Amino acid sequence: MRRKPSRRELLRMGVVAGGGVLAAREALGADADARKLGIPLGPYGERSPFEQSVRTFGASVTPGTGSSRTPLQELYGTITPSALHFERHHSGVPKIDPNTHELLLDGLVERPLVFTLKDLKKFPSASRVYFIECAGNSGREHEGRPGETVQRSHGLFSNSEWTGVRLKTVLDEAGVKPTARWIVAEGADASRMSRSIPFDKALDDVLVAFGQNGEALRPEQGYPLRLVVPGWEGNINIKWLGRIMVTEEPFMTREEAAIYTDLMPDGKGRWFTFVMEAKSVITSPSGQQVLDGRGWYEITGLAWSGRSRITRVEVSTDAGETWTDAQLNGPVLPKAATRFSLPWKWDGGEAALQSRCTDETGYVQPTRDQLISVRGLRAGPDGFNHYNGIKTWFVHRDGKVSHV
Amino acid sequence: MRRKPSRRELLRMGVVAGGGVLAAREALGADADARKLGIPLGPYGERSPFEQSVRTFGASVTPGTGSSRTPLQELYGTITPSALHFERHHSGVPKIDPNTHELLLDGLVERPLVFTLKDLKKFPSASRVYFIECAGNSGREHEGRPGETVQRSHGLFSNSEWTGVRLKTVLDEAGVKPTARWIVAEGADASRMSRSIPFDKALDDVLVAFGQNGEALRPEQGYPLRLVVPGWEGNINIKWLGRIMVTEEPFMTREEAAIYTDLMPDGKGRWFTFVMEAKSVITSPSGQQVLDGRGWYEITGLAWSGRSRITRVEVSTDAGETWTDAQLNGPVLPKAATRFSLPWKWDGGEAALQSRCTDETGYVQPTRDQLISVRGLRAGPDGFNHYNGIKTWFVHRDGKVSHV
Repeated sequence: MRRKPSRRELLRMGVVAGGGVLAAREALGADADARKLGIPLGPYGERSPFEQSVRTFGASVTPGTGSSRTPLQELYGTITPSALHFERHHSGVPKIDPNTHELLLDGLVERPLVFTLKDLKKFPSASRVYFIECAGNSGREHEGRPGETVQRSHGLFSNSEWTGVRLKTVLDEAGVKPTARWIVAEGADASRMSRSIPFDKALDDVLVAFGQNGEALRPEQGYPLRLVVPGWEGNINIKWLGRIMVTEEPFMTREEAAIYTDLMPDGKGRWFTFVMEAKSVITSPSGQQVLDGRGWYEITGLAWSGRSRITRVEVSTDAGETWTDAQLNGPVLPKAATRFSLPWKWDGGEAALQSRCTDETGYVQPTRDQLISVRGLRAGPDGFNHYNGIKTWFVHRDGKVSHV
Repeated sequence: MRRKPSRRELLRMGVVAGGGVLAAREALGADADARKLGIPLGPYGERSPFEQSVRTFGASVTPGTGSSRTPLQELYGTITPSALHFERHHSGVPKIDPNTHELLLDGLVERPLVFTLKDLKKFPSASRVYFIECAGNSGREHEGRPGETVQRSHGLFSNSEWTGVRLKTVLDEAGVKPTARWIVAEGADASRMSRSIPFDKALDDVLVAFGQNGEALRPEQGYPLRLVVPGWEGNINIKWLGRIMVTEEPFMTREEAAIYTDLMPDGKGRWFTFVMEAKSVITSPSGQQVLDGRGWYEITGLAWSGRSRITRVEVSTDAGETWTDAQLNGPVLPKAATRFSLPWKWDGGEAALQSRCTDETGYVQPTRDQLISVRGLRAGPDGFNHYNGIKTWFVHRDGKVSHV
């Protein structure tokens, strides 16, 4: 900020007071456009043309597959705008007519049923804020190829208010047989993404969701129906949900056997790493941002845990030598993104910024070295390794922020 | 919902099992399109073409003025999608370059200052969910011209996660003189909308906001800066914020003297009705919706209070003769929309649905008759009357829902 120009200075600039109730603002800021009659009311708004945040993605190996990443460094608060929610598709985004789409519920149930959207909306619904994170998010950090921006390193993470019917409600309607131990959920897209979920979780907090951030799910997020499996790896939150089958055993589908498994040091795959453990990352200052001179900045970022609430986030500016508790922006919700912040006075020297979170279970986010000592350096066959190590951003003397 | 077709029935329909892990779904739902390779990853997503919810508005008297209304009957949860946040403009939506826009802070301060967006973002920020409601929302109910849909009757209400700097932080930076009692905030748009705010409120929870639902404010909501004045009438949440002046007295601007005042039975205008009192409305079933047959439905709606949290919402299906407590969808936040719901079995007869809320101060939402007995039937000069009476939706025997 700067001192307000004096009246003498304003007169020298040729400013003539006038206009609104509060005069003499005209020389401050180039708001000539603002003073024209603006555009009229509109049916469905768009963002300002000055705003250019986008999801980023590389070239796909095959059409329709791949992932795009949320620009965490440019976002505020905790809700991810639906337009910027990360994507992970295996056969692209299908076009589904909600008027004809159906959900089949069968297997170990008394009454196999078919639900339309209209049917589902008659049941009691719930709205909850939950994060969804790809199992592979920040996997590059594990592999020693850290992302140059937080979008690249941690952008397979988003947070939304989801609305839907509890899966328990739907299962109760069909009547579950006593031998039920798992469900298998299948997407209606061309890839027929399928995942097995233990029955306890299915009865707990899983939602058959049709709403996201106040409106219908976005097509990339499973329109018109997706399973929301709070705190569990993103891939299990089946999009374009078309079928739920109640079973005695997991199906060991491709996405829980061949891929989306963690490779352990002995070369064996670990079965079913469902929960995304506590993790945090500083989103500002972060990679490729530039501090413009010494002085006060806000260090801010996001923390989350697939098990519970975040209870503490600590921030270090000296690579983990010393830590200071950050402030948590409430309400702090379970299995949801929590924004943390800490005012920081940059003295112009080098700094290494880190954040470390703790959740209600007492679990503390580990360092990369601690993770490697347990898991080794090899990720899963497809890089899906549930990595949640502490991330470092380096501030250089010229104010540039980088990942190394 | 319906029973799943038997294997015999599926065979008769000519279904051949195959495809995904879970077979035989092909005859259920017209998902032929879904099984094609879908569209690829994208930078900034859009909603499904099947979704057509829009803000509605009438013809404006003068270009750029008027208001558009949020389609509450089509929304889920509590967050209003930014694209559907209601609008109220006096000179249209200005185009403002965030790189040159400035906020002037002067008046009774030690150091008059000019802030850029970049300056403001260096201060500690906060993200909070708050509703914004136009003082004239549901004023038609007061006047005996009830809206035929909830969008028409109550759609000048929206709820967002706002991010910004506390106004107190900015005032502290300038150093406020001991004689300060009010601030005057002015928009940078052509209408130069200006409002006076008592100093106690300015120091309490007012935000200088730059973020809405995770991204920058939408242009219609004041991009790049708006004042968010939690719980107070919408008009005082100055958009396109360009100047804050600290004063000893209110300015008695046009928008707090000539309009946006309540007319009392004796014909005098009431000064400064700042707070939006507790209010609730059923959004489903609501006007112009149709119940398709007897059976279970979810009665759901929104409740809010400009003073505090909502503590209770009761629902009546017999025009207020008997009441049942609805469930509140948590977290219940102060000065924010709270969704309530109640399962309801429609017996096919006539019903008159109402909701009635209570807030932490113990205030109970009044009936229209109670309000009229205090205020009379005359609204303010511009219909801005802070009406918060109980709303009735009538369910007819044919399932149609109407406002009378």
